[in-house]
Amino acid sequence: MAYTIGIDIGGTNTDMGLIDSEGKIVARRNIPTNKYTDFELYVSDIARELKAMLDENKVEIDGIGIGAPNGNFYTGCVDNAPNLTIKGNLNFEQALGRYFDVPVVLSNDANAAAYGEYIYGGARGMKHFIMFTLGTGVGSGIVVDGVLVHGSTGAAGELGHSILIPEGRQCSCGRKGCLETYTSARGIVQTYRELYRDANGKEPDGDVTSKMIGDMAHQGDEVALATWRKTGYLLGIAMANAINFSAPEAIFLMGGPAQVGAPLLEPLQKSFDEHTLSIFKGTCRLMMSQLKANEVAILGAAALVKLKTKKS
Amino acid sequence: MAYTIGIDIGGTNTDMGLIDSEGKIVARRNIPTNKYTDFELYVSDIARELKAMLDENKVEIDGIGIGAPNGNFYTGCVDNAPNLTIKGNLNFEQALGRYFDVPVVLSNDANAAAYGEYIYGGARGMKHFIMFTLGTGVGSGIVVDGVLVHGSTGAAGELGHSILIPEGRQCSCGRKGCLETYTSARGIVQTYRELYRDANGKEPDGDVTSKMIGDMAHQGDEVALATWRKTGYLLGIAMANAINFSAPEAIFLMGGPAQVGAPLLEPLQKSFDEHTLSIFKGTCRLMMSQLKANEVAILGAAALVKLKTKKS
Repeated sequence: MAYTIGIDIGGTNTDMGLIDSEGKIVARRNIPTNKYTDFELYVSDIARELKAMLDENKVEIDGIGIGAPNGNFYTGCVDNAPNLTIKGNLNFEQALGRYFDVPVVLSNDANAAAYGEYIYGGARGMKHFIMFTLGTGVGSGIVVDGVLVHGSTGAAGELGHSILIPEGRQCSCGRKGCLETYTSARGIVQTYRELYRDANGKEPDGDVTSKMIGDMAHQGDEVALATWRKTGYLLGIAMANAINFSAPEAIFLMGGPAQVGAPLLEPLQKSFDEHTLSIFKGTCRLMMSQLKANEVAILGAAALVKLKTKKS
Repeated sequence: MAYTIGIDIGGTNTDMGLIDSEGKIVARRNIPTNKYTDFELYVSDIARELKAMLDENKVEIDGIGIGAPNGNFYTGCVDNAPNLTIKGNLNFEQALGRYFDVPVVLSNDANAAAYGEYIYGGARGMKHFIMFTLGTGVGSGIVVDGVLVHGSTGAAGELGHSILIPEGRQCSCGRKGCLETYTSARGIVQTYRELYRDANGKEPDGDVTSKMIGDMAHQGDEVALATWRKTGYLLGIAMANAINFSAPEAIFLMGGPAQVGAPLLEPLQKSFDEHTLSIFKGTCRLMMSQLKANEVAILGAAALVKLKTKKS
């Protein structure tokens, strides 16, 4: 039975998991990403943890998959990820490949999540689907004809940076009006603050997080509910727009803000239905990720190993 | 040497061409589409013209490709195309297949144009590109990993109906703010009329066409120039958004309004450059179709025959 290693590289933590062929995580390890500034030391510590995990479980692996912000499938590198304390172009494929005699495959975290849904989750058997991930930013991964779309650069699938409102909110990418500025955790907080000011003529007290806005919505808070309505409305347009590209069977949604449930999902479904072009109506389902929130990143990373055609 | 037939079905005319293996159109025929309301009669007349053309040229063909509005690659049907006088679901693949013992392949006109560029034009050798066609509407065709994207329905690639301005101009599709409402020939005329009213406090005299707005721009007319600037600005955003999906090597542009040249292309290039996400800057060229305007539709239709994997 073949096992696979999945590594999810986040700004704070590096999660590692050993996955069996059924998609069950049989062991996990974790090191803090943000303690490192030296790439070689970081990779050597990852390798040590992985070897310990393999020794403990006495299994062989068929590959190592890595999901990382700014991960490039073709080069195997993470290029200048703004949220990593280790700077520069980091060639994980090469560096980790020195420690293990199996393929090391890397892609960006949202692409990995999409492929995890394809191999282990709700997209099994589908040929065309799109995953939207809501979090600090908004990511996406796209499967067309059963193939994860990496494009000519290795970095395709950045629907969070599609401009939804020309000259809209300032985005951290330097441009204005990206989907991410409205539907990321930060964008949702900004919407809440704007609507709160409109309603109350002053700033809300203290810190506000998207989680808090979710809790407030469930308690019936009008400003919080309006925040999720606006978020769902705009995300629904972005998802309907994405259908025009590849006519997928389903669009999946995952990530922290999506966990709020009905306050987001009801206006989202309504907007999605209203803004879907007539020829696509009823052809594309809006679905939540079928993988557990604390497993999807590792499973997605492991799934990348299944990509048959590396580099094109 | 294998010849191929390409048929471009437009609302007014049905153009047919015999194409050699180098992509040269060696013979052409034409019948008026809008004289027909009976599908069987229409197809029988097409077949008669094609047989006459083959007899005249004494060649064998390897297939017949058809580009048509609302053409569906998987079903071989044109479904309720609003601009055809023949109504209903028209199964061209079956109907024309009765007359010829070669594959009949159908897709929508913009997909056909994209594939024509791939087989015979400026996209030869590319694996990832997108074609935008400007005309009465705005169409698109997308090639990912060397495959024309038809999606799960057979009708993918409708970027003209991506919503660019939420709650913007009313579109003929029933929704609001589609790219097509701003950058189709009709949308360009609407922009001109709006800008003319703003500048002059009254409606422009007589009919205005996008061709006339092009001529006026070349004569230095300020309202016409502003019209093209706005068109280029918005189209540039839409094209930059499309890069986020599939990271293509090039985005191609074709169609009547694009023939105006610099008044459109300069603001378009500027907007495209400004709105391209930093990780894609310099990776995707903006190019004009390299096929002749009066040949691209027929060549595109013929190119469809090269699609190896019919139906998925």
